[in-house]
Amino acid sequence: MRKLTAIYPGTFDPVTLGHLDVLERASKMFDRVIIAASEGSAKATLFTLSERLEMLKSAAAKYKNVKAESFEGLLVHYAEKKDAKVIVRGLRAISDFEYEFQMALTNRKIFPELETVFLMPNEKYSYISSTFVREISKYGGEVSAFVPALVKRMLRRKYKKLREFK
Amino acid sequence: MRKLTAIYPGTFDPVTLGHLDVLERASKMFDRVIIAASEGSAKATLFTLSERLEMLKSAAAKYKNVKAESFEGLLVHYAEKKDAKVIVRGLRAISDFEYEFQMALTNRKIFPELETVFLMPNEKYSYISSTFVREISKYGGEVSAFVPALVKRMLRRKYKKLREFK
Amino acid sequence: MRKLTAIYPGTFDPVTLGHLDVLERASKMFDRVIIAASEGSAKATLFTLSERLEMLKSAAAKYKNVKAESFEGLLVHYAEKKDAKVIVRGLRAISDFEYEFQMALTNRKIFPELETVFLMPNEKYSYISSTFVREISKYGGEVSAFVPALVKRMLRRKYKKLREFK
Amino acid sequence: MRKLTAIYPGTFDPVTLGHLDVLERASKMFDRVIIAASEGSAKATLFTLSERLEMLKSAAAKYKNVKAESFEGLLVHYAEKKDAKVIVRGLRAISDFEYEFQMALTNRKIFPELETVFLMPNEKYSYISSTFVREISKYGGEVSAFVPALVKRMLRRKYKKLREFK
Amino acid sequence: MRKLTAIYPGTFDPVTLGHLDVLERASKMFDRVIIAASEGSAKATLFTLSERLEMLKSAAAKYKNVKAESFEGLLVHYAEKKDAKVIVRGLRAISDFEYEFQMALTNRKIFPELETVFLMPNEKYSYISSTFVREISKYGGEVSAFVPALVKRMLRRKYKKLREFK
Amino acid sequence: MRKLTAIYPGTFDPVTLGHLDVLERASKMFDRVIIAASEGSAKATLFTLSERLEMLKSAAAKYKNVKAESFEGLLVHYAEKKDAKVIVRGLRAISDFEYEFQMALTNRKIFPELETVFLMPNEKYSYISSTFVREISKYGGEVSAFVPALVKRMLRRKYKKLREFK
Repeated sequence: MRKLTAIYPGTFDPVTLGHLDVLERASKMFDRVIIAASEGSAKATLFTLSERLEMLKSAAAKYKNVKAESFEGLLVHYAEKKDAKVIVRGLRAISDFEYEFQMALTNRKIFPELETVFLMPNEKYSYISSTFVREISKYGGEVSAFVPALVKRMLRRKYKKLREFK
Repeated sequence: MRKLTAIYPGTFDPVTLGHLDVLERASKMFDRVIIAASEGSAKATLFTLSERLEMLKSAAAKYKNVKAESFEGLLVHYAEKKDAKVIVRGLRAISDFEYEFQMALTNRKIFPELETVFLMPNEKYSYISSTFVREISKYGGEVSAFVPALVKRMLRRKYKKLREFK
Repeated sequence: MRKLTAIYPGTFDPVTLGHLDVLERASKMFDRVIIAASEGSAKATLFTLSERLEMLKSAAAKYKNVKAESFEGLLVHYAEKKDAKVIVRGLRAISDFEYEFQMALTNRKIFPELETVFLMPNEKYSYISSTFVREISKYGGEVSAFVPALVKRMLRRKYKKLREFK
Repeated sequence: MRKLTAIYPGTFDPVTLGHLDVLERASKMFDRVIIAASEGSAKATLFTLSERLEMLKSAAAKYKNVKAESFEGLLVHYAEKKDAKVIVRGLRAISDFEYEFQMALTNRKIFPELETVFLMPNEKYSYISSTFVREISKYGGEVSAFVPALVKRMLRRKYKKLREFK
Repeated sequence: MRKLTAIYPGTFDPVTLGHLDVLERASKMFDRVIIAASEGSAKATLFTLSERLEMLKSAAAKYKNVKAESFEGLLVHYAEKKDAKVIVRGLRAISDFEYEFQMALTNRKIFPELETVFLMPNEKYSYISSTFVREISKYGGEVSAFVPALVKRMLRRKYKKLREFK
Repeated sequence: MRKLTAIYPGTFDPVTLGHLDVLERASKMFDRVIIAASEGSAKATLFTLSERLEMLKSAAAKYKNVKAESFEGLLVHYAEKKDAKVIVRGLRAISDFEYEFQMALTNRKIFPELETVFLMPNEKYSYISSTFVREISKYGGEVSAFVPALVKRMLRRKYKKLREFK
């Protein structure tokens, strides 16, 4: 019987409860899941790649078949190296969908065996975005409803440091 | 190791090359796939349930791990009976997505273990719809680019008969 | 100080927990709210107008400033008669939005003083639709998570009767 | 120099000011424009094909390069017969776009030389739909802001007759 | 009788006729309206916070129940401080809706009593965006159809200054 | 007989096969077509204006009625100078549509005679975006399926140079 490795890629800046919900669903569906932080070259991230990897490792720890990694360069090259045939993406909203659709078709053109599957998070997480979480956290707002406890602490520490440097 | 059974449900009135493309992708991803024609109570269909099942059986024949069935009633009840944990749906467009999103969240509420995964057909099939196929076929238009040969023959026969009955 | 009367119109075939959530929000925002079942000429409804009014009356009973009514004909004419300047609509999804947008601009053209306000239900009700509720109920599925207890009973009774008549 | 014939097809049940706005724009862009009422097999129309053709003829009268026709069967076959290489469609909203996109790609597959161009009506007509016009007119609402005078009269007459027949 | 304070927040860089149309509608619906310029930390604005406040004050002057303010930090904290229970937002298009939906649900999670209501501007303003206004103004284009006279003057002065500094 | 000049404007950073497909369609529809690279003030581009003009000139060379240009400032001013009455835009997706809709209505307000027409690229190019092409090329991915040969060479040279400068 074939064993499928799926990659759940993202910037994860930071990881939210919505991401973790999608991860849980993926872990039940595929033999092995790699949750992978991309370097995120295009946009400056709040957290460094190694900080984001730390978040992912904490999230992966509760599953036997999940591991956390980070990667640079193109997702399709990384998938090929890992011998992964499936990309997992969470779908929250229309705007997501458009972008995801383009990216999935582009990836497929480059690496035709690579299939993208879309999973839906629980509706209670459907509106959470890393961008809003950063914005709220920056002004000292409460983010317990949006991120795991570790990330909440990391956000507090990060913005404390950023304020001291100004 | 767990074995996953996925159901690919639809009205399939008739099956199109877009549906077959999604089926192919699903067959590579899950251990067993059931492509299942729903009775389609809400809307009158052109083809009877047994005609649509015939189309699905022809499509399933080329895969070892796919079988074709038909079902009445709620999809969630059918999935439960089949011990299937995954529903496969093809995503073509925004309008699809809205409806699919609602249906998937509703199904999840009733049967929480049931996960819906969305796959994308090849972009060359992204615009094909059963509705357009019926419309074109009705007026004697050419549908070879949209449906398999068997369905083309069944469409021709069906509309010939309908014209004779008028 | 002006007092605003708002109408929350709909087919309500049947009322869902999503509708009730929007009603609760409207009751806090406006001086008087009329939740009003439209006759629903265009599409045949499952429940009669008086059955739907019964559901709305049960929902209105817990608010001092809400009453339930039904109306025939155009919403704008009904609003004029009631001296209501506000129409309340719930927004769930894109497809909703398009249709609502058209209807609100059309109504405004006919009765310019009439303002449409859109409220969002709690995200846990964001996917509930009367159509799915009827479908599930028809096949004996569990609808407790989607409708109030009274509506659940009325659905069971209705489909029992429909089956007996076949 | 080539001369382009464009077809502006639709159900036009009835023609609205939005349709006329698109027609005006098309008449400036193409050498010849045929505004063509389709029989509209799929859905029962309020106006007969000859009534709708009457509306279109009245609209076409003010342009030297526009004529009105009606057609049965597939649009692509009709375009081929008329040696028309362009289909004109108005774009109002997202939901329009999805459907139009599918239809245009389907038509192109059958008749590759046929190009669909999308034009935008003036924003003041962007929300007008034949469906709402019928609904408003049915209940005696004022439709002067949505349709030309001829259509207003035809709507009044039509609904008067329908009421007498009940 | 309760009195409702509504906040109409935005970047207003600059205020457009579309914003003023929404403000007019809000002023008729709520007892007190605060139109509030957010500092807009995330993106660099063309106008300073005090320039944008000047625009808002000019707009508020014609209403007895409207005042203009500016705020830093999170909208939910500002609303709490002002004892405002309603956030007013204009809805123009799909892309708006998605973002607004996310923001409103996020705000509600943090401050559950805070309700977001969506109002539609007149369709003639439905396409105006501050971004396009800045772009047009930058190249000396005519913006009288998009912004009030004061803003037009401020745009001209601003770009004149920016050109001199280069 | 009037002769229509159409402008097909864009940033073209870089030109893709999707753009070329739209250009081909436009060249068949209008008497003269100018494919015009805008300076792209708002966002820093990868290629200089003269590099992008080089790509456009190469693309225009195969058509008798197409020429390539570049322009600064507002598109409406450029169209007026060129006595062009038509703007051509490709429509790929919903998100495109929203933005295009706003821009076309804004342009029309400033220069009412200017009509925007939307054409659809072949569905096999429907997902290609310049942004993804740059991203893929940056990491040495294969872009032959997305851009013409000249652009592929220019991308390789550009990123080689950028890496050397780091």
